[in-house]
Amino acid sequence: MIRIMPHPANPPRRAATPLPWPPALEAMAERRRLAPGTALFRAGDPARHVFGLAQGQVALRRVGVAGEDIVIHLAQAGECFAEASLHGGHYHCTAEAVGTADVAAVPAEALRARLRDDPDFALQWSALLAAQLRRTRARVERLCLRSAADRVLHLLQTEGHGRDGAYTPRSTLRALAAELGLTPEALYRTLAALQRAGRLRRDGPVLRLR
Amino acid sequence: MIRIMPHPANPPRRAATPLPWPPALEAMAERRRLAPGTALFRAGDPARHVFGLAQGQVALRRVGVAGEDIVIHLAQAGECFAEASLHGGHYHCTAEAVGTADVAAVPAEALRARLRDDPDFALQWSALLAAQLRRTRARVERLCLRSAADRVLHLLQTEGHGRDGAYTPRSTLRALAAELGLTPEALYRTLAALQRAGRLRRDGPVLRLR
Repeated sequence: MIRIMPHPANPPRRAATPLPWPPALEAMAERRRLAPGTALFRAGDPARHVFGLAQGQVALRRVGVAGEDIVIHLAQAGECFAEASLHGGHYHCTAEAVGTADVAAVPAEALRARLRDDPDFALQWSALLAAQLRRTRARVERLCLRSAADRVLHLLQTEGHGRDGAYTPRSTLRALAAELGLTPEALYRTLAALQRAGRLRRDGPVLRLR
Repeated sequence: MIRIMPHPANPPRRAATPLPWPPALEAMAERRRLAPGTALFRAGDPARHVFGLAQGQVALRRVGVAGEDIVIHLAQAGECFAEASLHGGHYHCTAEAVGTADVAAVPAEALRARLRDDPDFALQWSALLAAQLRRTRARVERLCLRSAADRVLHLLQTEGHGRDGAYTPRSTLRALAAELGLTPEALYRTLAALQRAGRLRRDGPVLRLR
């Protein structure tokens, strides 16, 4: 059963949780707030929407052959998911809000029509997918590094800004640890060790190379 | 210095190394064979091509703040890379053939023109990027799993075909180990343990769940 709580008419959080989306895409989207554990769609449902996640986390999971829970993707704020809905068919997994989540649902049919009719928009959409691919691939390489320190430094080098790789975690250090495939304790230890070694500086929430 | 060895006029390997590309994209591409270590492009070069990798591996790397080597992505056969070239600017990293590599170079300008003029092609291009995103995200989740056995089972569940998750490694088990963030020895041990536990069957090169 899908329980979607409609967003209030003048959502105060809308402005507070922008997606890095072209205005044309945002204009097509309908905002929805999901209570923790709510299924946004289930495997086998007709694929009718492409989603953006403005806030929270959404887990895309599937039941394995032996009945086990297979997480295919844990979508983070700022990302799209279910982009393949653009091409119809059915969802191959179930999407569930992990905590409270704010999603932007774009009807696949409207998106398809816009891609057909507006070449500039088609280029913007392609740029959006290419940027997500770049970030996801960098994350793969980071997770393949053996040492926790190397993963932290790789993050700042690839996602940080400016010469000193200034990087502001999107939410908590606990969430950052999960993103880096580390336990929170391992991340805290690693940050402290990098600071002692003079390789990292902490500037409020911002991490910087030095 | 970029040394690109032109492909012979009637390349016998062309048919042997197809890319999972729509014919319209393949028609725009120029095939190139790269000798090991050859730079396909360097950070700072004008971004003029989007690439597909038909065979081999290409490392996308950057020099870090402290002069260290940062691998941003290790492209595998069947994948695209440098998709952001479509939107102009300069390459942000250097691409280098790891062994011998066969690449398909698509001029960004021709690709942009085609995306503008051909809405069906724009949808095909979007589908290609969405499929790569799906696979790359599943790989992120797999690398976040602690146990080697869980990573192998996740691979078969997400990338395998049919009820028994039949999965044929793209090249060697050594390459598969790297893809799973494992040492070759750890992968061999894990496959043997899963077979003993009756959870995996090896059928020539094919791995199957049971």
